[in-house]
Amino acid sequence: MNVHENLKSLFHPESFAVVGAASDLNRLGGIPLRLTMRYGFPGPIYPINPRREEIAGLKCYPDVASLPEAPEFALICTPREDVLPALAQCAERGVKAAAVITSGFAETGAEGAALQEKILALRDESGMRVLGPNCMGVVHVRSRLMATFTISIRDDDPLIPGAVAIVTQSGAMGACMLTGFQESGSGISSLVSLGNEVDVDFAECVEYFIDDPHTRVICGYLESVRDGERLKRAALRALEKNKPIVLLKGGKTEEGARAARSHTAALTTESDVFGAFAAQYGIQVLDSMDEFIEIADFLARSGPIRGNGVGVLSFSGGLGALAADLCTEAGLTLPILAKSTQGKLAGVLPDYAPKDNPVDLVSLMVSKPESQPLKTAGEAVAGDESVDALLFMMGVYHHVGDQIAAEVKALFESSQIPVAFAWLTGPREQIQCLRKASVPVFGDYARAIRGLESLFSLKNAREAAASRPRSVDTARAEKAKRIIKECTPSPDGFLPPEACAEILDLYGIPRPKEALADTAEEALKAWEEIQTPVALKVVSDSLSHKTEAGGVILNLDAPDEIIACAGRLLTLADDARLLVQEMVEGGLELLVGISNDPTFGPCVTAGLGGVYVEALDDVARLLPPFHASEAARALSGLRSRVIFEGFRGRPAVQIPHISDIIVKISELATELGSEVAEMDINPLIATAGGCIAADVRIKTNSQ
Amino acid sequence: MNVHENLKSLFHPESFAVVGAASDLNRLGGIPLRLTMRYGFPGPIYPINPRREEIAGLKCYPDVASLPEAPEFALICTPREDVLPALAQCAERGVKAAAVITSGFAETGAEGAALQEKILALRDESGMRVLGPNCMGVVHVRSRLMATFTISIRDDDPLIPGAVAIVTQSGAMGACMLTGFQESGSGISSLVSLGNEVDVDFAECVEYFIDDPHTRVICGYLESVRDGERLKRAALRALEKNKPIVLLKGGKTEEGARAARSHTAALTTESDVFGAFAAQYGIQVLDSMDEFIEIADFLARSGPIRGNGVGVLSFSGGLGALAADLCTEAGLTLPILAKSTQGKLAGVLPDYAPKDNPVDLVSLMVSKPESQPLKTAGEAVAGDESVDALLFMMGVYHHVGDQIAAEVKALFESSQIPVAFAWLTGPREQIQCLRKASVPVFGDYARAIRGLESLFSLKNAREAAASRPRSVDTARAEKAKRIIKECTPSPDGFLPPEACAEILDLYGIPRPKEALADTAEEALKAWEEIQTPVALKVVSDSLSHKTEAGGVILNLDAPDEIIACAGRLLTLADDARLLVQEMVEGGLELLVGISNDPTFGPCVTAGLGGVYVEALDDVARLLPPFHASEAARALSGLRSRVIFEGFRGRPAVQIPHISDIIVKISELATELGSEVAEMDINPLIATAGGCIAADVRIKTNSQ
Repeated sequence: MNVHENLKSLFHPESFAVVGAASDLNRLGGIPLRLTMRYGFPGPIYPINPRREEIAGLKCYPDVASLPEAPEFALICTPREDVLPALAQCAERGVKAAAVITSGFAETGAEGAALQEKILALRDESGMRVLGPNCMGVVHVRSRLMATFTISIRDDDPLIPGAVAIVTQSGAMGACMLTGFQESGSGISSLVSLGNEVDVDFAECVEYFIDDPHTRVICGYLESVRDGERLKRAALRALEKNKPIVLLKGGKTEEGARAARSHTAALTTESDVFGAFAAQYGIQVLDSMDEFIEIADFLARSGPIRGNGVGVLSFSGGLGALAADLCTEAGLTLPILAKSTQGKLAGVLPDYAPKDNPVDLVSLMVSKPESQPLKTAGEAVAGDESVDALLFMMGVYHHVGDQIAAEVKALFESSQIPVAFAWLTGPREQIQCLRKASVPVFGDYARAIRGLESLFSLKNAREAAASRPRSVDTARAEKAKRIIKECTPSPDGFLPPEACAEILDLYGIPRPKEALADTAEEALKAWEEIQTPVALKVVSDSLSHKTEAGGVILNLDAPDEIIACAGRLLTLADDARLLVQEMVEGGLELLVGISNDPTFGPCVTAGLGGVYVEALDDVARLLPPFHASEAARALSGLRSRVIFEGFRGRPAVQIPHISDIIVKISELATELGSEVAEMDINPLIATAGGCIAADVRIKTNSQ
Repeated sequence: MNVHENLKSLFHPESFAVVGAASDLNRLGGIPLRLTMRYGFPGPIYPINPRREEIAGLKCYPDVASLPEAPEFALICTPREDVLPALAQCAERGVKAAAVITSGFAETGAEGAALQEKILALRDESGMRVLGPNCMGVVHVRSRLMATFTISIRDDDPLIPGAVAIVTQSGAMGACMLTGFQESGSGISSLVSLGNEVDVDFAECVEYFIDDPHTRVICGYLESVRDGERLKRAALRALEKNKPIVLLKGGKTEEGARAARSHTAALTTESDVFGAFAAQYGIQVLDSMDEFIEIADFLARSGPIRGNGVGVLSFSGGLGALAADLCTEAGLTLPILAKSTQGKLAGVLPDYAPKDNPVDLVSLMVSKPESQPLKTAGEAVAGDESVDALLFMMGVYHHVGDQIAAEVKALFESSQIPVAFAWLTGPREQIQCLRKASVPVFGDYARAIRGLESLFSLKNAREAAASRPRSVDTARAEKAKRIIKECTPSPDGFLPPEACAEILDLYGIPRPKEALADTAEEALKAWEEIQTPVALKVVSDSLSHKTEAGGVILNLDAPDEIIACAGRLLTLADDARLLVQEMVEGGLELLVGISNDPTFGPCVTAGLGGVYVEALDDVARLLPPFHASEAARALSGLRSRVIFEGFRGRPAVQIPHISDIIVKISELATELGSEVAEMDINPLIATAGGCIAADVRIKTNSQ
């Protein structure tokens, strides 16, 4: 049974029971009855309350067992102590899905958590799906199911059937979102409040709505991810099926955590990993409720964007310039308009007005509204080959509000490319009408630009996902695992240098010529064999930052130097050995690492080396597997990218070379999975010709 | 005559003439007549049009000369060719102020610019003040002056007298702002559209509204600053008088400029300097129109904040957590509530609900609205000693909308501290009522937090401004100028090392022991005198990046080393000399510089040294004069601040030491003014004990 069938009983049941029904239709156990009746739920509705004969004209039953049939979906609103018995009865009777509104479970401490464990056991035994506990229930507009006690659904304002599904880990935030979509005029398809997620979770609901034909955008409030792998799979499928995911994300501020980190792997915190996941899988994490509502609606109404060229039309030259700045910051460009486009604009705009992008519509709506100037100018720019989307910004012209609305609607309908329309301090009534007619409207220019940025990031994520490797080299993975199994890691899990070298070789990651030495004489011999200047590095389980401990000496190239330095380094620790390594010079030092997140698994980190960049947290993070183009894009997004290009006479390096190495690290991370707890290549030296891993540490989990 | 009297005729005239009056009251020359009559302008209104006897019941005059009296203010709406004659007549007749709506002047090219020059000459001759040309005119709600053609003022929606004055360099943006304040329910005190700023400019209007008793916030759209010094003075007085300035700022994206910079001074672009100015003078530059409207209104209604402790109350635990994150990012803190506060909360909240900050109001408004829970909880938190402001976030509860509004109003009125109230997707009608009753309302939590951040940044700027030095050491300034005058700069204006050293000494900026040498033997002698290891640095007018040219050798401490290295360095350039300098070690390398902005004058730049920080543009910028506490705050705001604290075993440095040096540079910059074109101290070496300027370059303008 696929997810859709699995959760069908929750969103589209044939029959509906309310266990703990109240005769007061404005109270918790009464609201779902009132709403479901009002919205005309087509199947039977069963109130269950042993102390009533009838509620709101419906026959009331003492318990689930005495119902004439097994209801497909039961909503549990009883006091906490009655929840388990009610669920047990439901399971026994053959109820397919139950939602528990009642609170007082894992969110309240150990006693509640124990009760919740019993719900889970019941679910595992019976196969009955359980939503909640401690949730606000389910709304499904088209199946007329209102299994919720939220007071945000008003009798005098029927829910508009929309294209946005809300999946929320906070009931109150869900109610707020529902109202936002309702007030804006765009409506929702469904709302599901997850509560404590004893069974049905965020990822599964996302999967459900991917297959819901009425849902075009899945949005919601997310605090914690229960199953990272499942969410990754769901997000990938959403991306492929062009169902954008739009989130408000709650979590803890990690200022403190950042200050305490000590090496590359620890550079990465939980929210960093979520950020990497969101960026790679096209998940739009927004910063405010307004942004959330308007961008979700925009993505639900707009087709994909083909590039980042934006044609800007504005009622004010000043606003045009301001918007152009914001577009540039958002990675969008303002192409120069073709001669033919300028010719078309000349037919609408006065002679003195420039025909550049951004287009200043001057006071056309005041001076000659009769000529349909907005639609004509908009279509001219939308027809330009270099323009991939329109940003259309109007101010307030109350006396021609209807006409502006009509022209924008016509433009939206005729346009082959996305149109982000921002109506600043515009008339509320016409804005609602437009939204009801499926035309998205932004209340502010900044949000409209963020909307276009979202479309473009979705395009990039979709293309990246399509190019991602889908299979692993199992033979290589086995070999690597065998190397780890057969070596003796240090007490805290670090692999010996020989094993690290073997693994690098296996994945085709270049490393310098090197040899291990236990004495100064062996070091001398190694230097003679390497035949170039060498670095001496101390190897010891007890020194984790060998540079800071004075355990690295570079550029030695004479027998007496080697003997003297090797002798001193060997005294730095009881277990000290020496790595004698070919000097690699003239390159840029990078650091590349793998960390392992408990939720999302391996995460690859890459950036420039050096303490400053590390302190400034200017590093790219990617969840494997990923394609070289994703690595290149992430590196190009770093603030330090100017340094890659050769800053102030420093060597320029090729981002594709670095990306290739990072992809090899990605393969290593994917194939070894949780066996690698951490890996650091620091430095990875990039030159014009390629990259060399000058120093590597691998920490394993498998001991 | 002070500014207020100077511009009084523009905003509060006794009589009003429209030159180029139209009989069609919906056209450009008619709208001002219609609006001014409708709003009941108390003085005489004179339409001027040689082809009419009467317009809208008012006697019409053929020209200004034939009026029965000199009108105090004349609005010029004539065709372009008639503007100068009309202004000349006004000046002759004794009109105090004129506003020119007509366009076609400097904004259109050379011919228009020449015409505009003539207006300026006329103004200089006559003393008559001129607004515009190419502007939208003036609105002053309380003096009932509607000298504008904007269609944003509607007959059916009389302007609300508010506390916000709009000063705008874009008419269309001004109209949009006017509507925003009107629709939000908060209103404006006045609007002035500046057009081409031939005479009256942005800074002067700011000065005017500082003294306007009805204006509490000055806001607007700014693109270019005509007189930086005047704007600085105006902003300082606005800060002192507690009249916040709130802006949308247009300008050019400078991505390209940033990549091309070559040294410290060039690190700083025009918009960087404006950013430094805004930060130091408490000017709030916002990112969207919604933010702009709501924050301006909030600042107009809120008293100052005393600290950064925020008590958060929210309808949703999830939202509370999300808001807590945003507060932390904005530099605000969430103090732990006192036991007594928790006790008061226990009287309102259910037992199971935690009494922490953020306070989760759970569903109090649903479960027991009769107890005035919002006001009670709000007052409890507002009364906590550690709480400096409230962030109060409600969702949508339509059925208790009136009660929420009433409780919030009562809380706002009883509270001694600022209350930022965000009503997410709240009911429009009640929100407008609250705003009309002077209670600011935010439509989104993110904007409410930005509002609190604004209040806190105003407090910091006000305190910093109060501590800023107000006088200069003229004797020292003269000495420094004499040093510059008496030395021989290089052809491109760089002072010789001796002069740089003298200037450093004059301002008490420590420098290493050093001596100049023209030969290897002189270098050897210098080393012997310095008595520590030395650095040799080549000095040459033709080498501007001496490190990159291999012209710096560190850590020499033996006669043969000195002779050999000095010999090689002297061959690097024909005019090569050597600086023999005491080695300063074990410190953190910083860079500090002065650049000179054509609008705002000197700007001091400071940050960590090293190419990465420079490439990442992580530097503090400050306009002198400033206090050490401002420098310390700016340094603490750098992303690289963790490195100051001793990162990964590197030396920690004292920000106060660095701030002291930066203040000395500030004094130098203030006292020398435009005589210093650029100055770079690179590196300034900071150790636990103090700072030393290891290398300095000063470029002068005075040749």
